Amino acid sequence: MQSLQQKASEWSGVNAADAFAIDETNLFQKLGLQTFINLSTNFYTRIYDDEEEWFRSIFANSKKEEAIQNQYEFFVQRMRGPALYSERKGHPALIGRHRPFPVTHRAAERWLHHMEKALESTLDIDTYSKLRMMNFFRHTAYFLVAGDELKNQNQRVPCKHAASKPAAA
Amino acid sequence: MQSLQQKASEWSGVNAADAFAIDETNLFQKLGLQTFINLSTNFYTRIYDDEEEWFRSIFANSKKEEAIQNQYEFFVQRMRGPALYSERKGHPALIGRHRPFPVTHRAAERWLHHMEKALESTLDIDTYSKLRMMNFFRHTAYFLVAGDELKNQNQRVPCKHAASKPAAA
Repeated sequence: MQSLQQKASEWSGVNAADAFAIDETNLFQKLGLQTFINLSTNFYTRIYDDEEEWFRSIFANSKKEEAIQNQYEFFVQRMRGPALYSERKGHPALIGRHRPFPVTHRAAERWLHHMEKALESTLDIDTYSKLRMMNFFRHTAYFLVAGDELKNQNQRVPCKHAASKPAAA
Repeated sequence: MQSLQQKASEWSGVNAADAFAIDETNLFQKLGLQTFINLSTNFYTRIYDDEEEWFRSIFANSKKEEAIQNQYEFFVQRMRGPALYSERKGHPALIGRHRPFPVTHRAAERWLHHMEKALESTLDIDTYSKLRMMNFFRHTAYFLVAGDELKNQNQRVPCKHAASKPAAA
């Protein structure tokens, strides 16, 4: 069976070494807190205004301000800054916390499209950091698509008639 | 609804500030790689020899050497050392990766019992670091008990007769 990491690499086209090259530099020290806040603000401004309703609706039950804070605190923590996210919310637990959302290949691509645009429109992120971050985001998005599939495995267990229905493609 | 963090704090008796006080010092720099390898070796030697079969059997499908490596690489990464775990396996995704295991209150206590003994028997860990790590482990163990409950929530969805059964206390 392919591991989460293998699926993430294969589907995203980004190998693990490139994805986790974010750890070679302290991107938090390089970019600073305000840049991460700006990036997540730009990102979610795009998301909550997305013309594609199927994608926008995934976020309908979350408040924009909270989504922004969750994201930039996680980015800051993962990119070697203070553990803002864990102090407030606990472990990132990326797969567990994405459990309520349909993290499909299509949703991953839409997320990545908006993140690429958000990176472009955020001042003070140099090309080197943008490339590193995009590789990390691309690999992580597909890591979560792989994580989402675990959910379907579990859902086939509880009752007999559910097992006879094929899982949605 | 209580958050994962709130449940972890309430059930473990360790508040988030104390759990994530591991971030105030770079414990990896302080203790070094070999100490983490020794700790996880001591821990899993106890686990795989546990006289309590119900607990030992949780690990029966994992190889001891692999369990040791997974654990010390995660600890090293989380305690501000190199991202050994992610380079090899991807995001820690603690809840997602514990999905196959029954992470009950009882299992958390047994895990913590062995970890406390393993910390005691590992040379070169000072009292200050032991205390910090134990707070982190205790909070995290109950964070995963809280994460485990999400599994049961999902399992109530797929079929009607499942919804009529009350969840186990």
